[in-house]
Amino acid sequence: MINIAVAQSGGPTCAINSSLAGVIKEALQEERIGSVFGSRNGIEGIINDRLVNLDKETCTDEWLNLLKYTPASVLGSCRIKLRSSAQDADTYKTIFENFKKNNIGAFFYIGGNDSMDTVQKLSEYAAQNNIDVRIIGIPKTIDNDVAATDHTPGYGSAAKYIATTAAEIIRDSAVYNVKSVTIIEIMGRDAGWLTAAAALPRANNQPAPDLIYLPETAFSTQKFIDDINNLHEKQNSVVVAVSEGLKDENGEYAANGYLSETVDVFGHQYLAGLGKFLENLVKEKIGCKVRAVELNVMQRCSSHLSSKTDLDEAELIGAQAVKASFRGVTGKMMIFRRISTVPYKTEIDSFEISTIANKEKLFPVDWINDQGNNINDEAVQYILPLIQGEVQIPTKNGLPVHITI
Amino acid sequence: MINIAVAQSGGPTCAINSSLAGVIKEALQEERIGSVFGSRNGIEGIINDRLVNLDKETCTDEWLNLLKYTPASVLGSCRIKLRSSAQDADTYKTIFENFKKNNIGAFFYIGGNDSMDTVQKLSEYAAQNNIDVRIIGIPKTIDNDVAATDHTPGYGSAAKYIATTAAEIIRDSAVYNVKSVTIIEIMGRDAGWLTAAAALPRANNQPAPDLIYLPETAFSTQKFIDDINNLHEKQNSVVVAVSEGLKDENGEYAANGYLSETVDVFGHQYLAGLGKFLENLVKEKIGCKVRAVELNVMQRCSSHLSSKTDLDEAELIGAQAVKASFRGVTGKMMIFRRISTVPYKTEIDSFEISTIANKEKLFPVDWINDQGNNINDEAVQYILPLIQGEVQIPTKNGLPVHITI
Repeated sequence: MINIAVAQSGGPTCAINSSLAGVIKEALQEERIGSVFGSRNGIEGIINDRLVNLDKETCTDEWLNLLKYTPASVLGSCRIKLRSSAQDADTYKTIFENFKKNNIGAFFYIGGNDSMDTVQKLSEYAAQNNIDVRIIGIPKTIDNDVAATDHTPGYGSAAKYIATTAAEIIRDSAVYNVKSVTIIEIMGRDAGWLTAAAALPRANNQPAPDLIYLPETAFSTQKFIDDINNLHEKQNSVVVAVSEGLKDENGEYAANGYLSETVDVFGHQYLAGLGKFLENLVKEKIGCKVRAVELNVMQRCSSHLSSKTDLDEAELIGAQAVKASFRGVTGKMMIFRRISTVPYKTEIDSFEISTIANKEKLFPVDWINDQGNNINDEAVQYILPLIQGEVQIPTKNGLPVHITI
Repeated sequence: MINIAVAQSGGPTCAINSSLAGVIKEALQEERIGSVFGSRNGIEGIINDRLVNLDKETCTDEWLNLLKYTPASVLGSCRIKLRSSAQDADTYKTIFENFKKNNIGAFFYIGGNDSMDTVQKLSEYAAQNNIDVRIIGIPKTIDNDVAATDHTPGYGSAAKYIATTAAEIIRDSAVYNVKSVTIIEIMGRDAGWLTAAAALPRANNQPAPDLIYLPETAFSTQKFIDDINNLHEKQNSVVVAVSEGLKDENGEYAANGYLSETVDVFGHQYLAGLGKFLENLVKEKIGCKVRAVELNVMQRCSSHLSSKTDLDEAELIGAQAVKASFRGVTGKMMIFRRISTVPYKTEIDSFEISTIANKEKLFPVDWINDQGNNINDEAVQYILPLIQGEVQIPTKNGLPVHITI
């Protein structure tokens, strides 16, 4: 009889708690598992031994249902990047001592590609030191930029939020009888997956943004202004979706003057204000009514607008990770493999962590049009199944009910 | 047998098309009405005779249902402010000639307090010139700042969006184990109704923003920083809701340096960037992790998260306006009168337009705490009934279906 531990890392999503619910639910009905521990603030909670016992008394069906629809990471998150075991032996020693102390035989880390670096390092350390703790990654990121898996839990809900909100903003932007430009700024530092989702209303022959710029192709401010002017010849309202991380042909961020100086612990420059930069550019070069709208954290925490497919898959992949640990899987991340798109069908497997950690899966350049200002239908067909299904979130007094651990 | 015309004006909301649906539905089943004309872009469509015939063939039950859940003004809007008939007799002559030409006996104008100025001017002109065209205002604004009515259609849905989104952002902000400040910037130039709605999760004993600042009380940047520092002594994450129009004790906008120079046709200065201003202030004075989130147009166009109570009331008040026109009502705006809060009960009546047009109903100062940094429970009880009920929006492929006229 072993215990297990589970932790959440990286930026919050609408689906990360669904994966946690999947792990807990599966583990609590597995007779070979004693206790299920939640580690507070990702790997920090293992290092500091801040564990919470997720027992059957706490984790009732009703509680697990509330957990599934609570946005962000209820166990808390962290942005720690472990140094190598050669550089920081003490931390590894502490981690595995705490695993031993709590009789933890398997550790599940729900996170993005930065978090998978932790999975890789811990599993390598365990192997090198003949410690039988299975370390398994469960993918999570709205960015959909994790290698080896067809898509990541969290992406479908963010994509549904972005597509729905884009459709609503397009209506809002079209009411006045004047030339206007609306710029929707969407997350995605290097990968355009999220911004591409703005095109989805096309699948219903409903208006989608007129122009979509992804970071995978070089962005030219002159071309941007020309594209808008061309559209203004035949329509009043032009709506543009842009990835926060657009770069020019020299690989420099398009809004370089508008960059925040903050750098996160992974050395990524914190982007802010591309929308505002482009708003001012339009004001200067075109002079029409213009507004930038940043979808900001709402695109990762609007759980009321989650994709049912996404949350169900997130729960399932969490449960499958627990099952995989009993098959001896370690040093791997769980993945989705797409069997078919119509009808949508996937299978769950696990994949070597070394080919995943610290990698970024970019949006295929083949799916971007020649002009670099929109995406093709193949991309729409890829994303569409991931946003299917509406969730009925638990409500009270007209507001969502969330839980705290 | 007369015809009627209906138009939409001012900023879009989630409920303005519900009121249109109410007008159309009631008018199409009224035997004394011949045709129902929609005027494109508010009063502009009457001036330019751009009318669309909203007949039974177009306005099926299914179509009216889609209309109800389509955000923004499907007939288009305008921001025209009519000059007086003494200054601009030609425009009034054109308007009433076009009413006569199209045999229009009643005109319904769905809009906010600026639009009610048009209702007042047109009804006065009709009275002075003995023209029997009844002119009736139907209130609409997310701002809830219209006099004489308990509340305005559109406010309840915006309030539900703000309260839900605040609850979700609070979860998103709390995941890291570090001191942080999240600033939610909410619309409301002079009136704090929208920002106050962020407090609603309190009704469920769920976390709400720690600090709420409304434009009705003077804002001090020093007090703001002190308030945050006090909270940081006992908690990591501090979430603040601010109205875009906060002013200091001298009545100057708190973010004056950050004001856009744009002025709208009513002479209102266009506010932008209070959140960004406060973000930089926190960075400088406190130095912790900080993020500003502007709810932007999403708070007025996120129809997927509408309040059922709001949309149903909006439809009803539209229908009641048509009925009122046959009772000879003119030069008035339809209003809600609250009979009781628990259980929630209202009645619909009409009110003299001269006491409404160009007035602003501010948030009661009695409902703001002594420190000027939160609202009391009386305010929560007032707003709560307006956000009740979830809507099931028509969807296809996981996305909302909107209509175009």
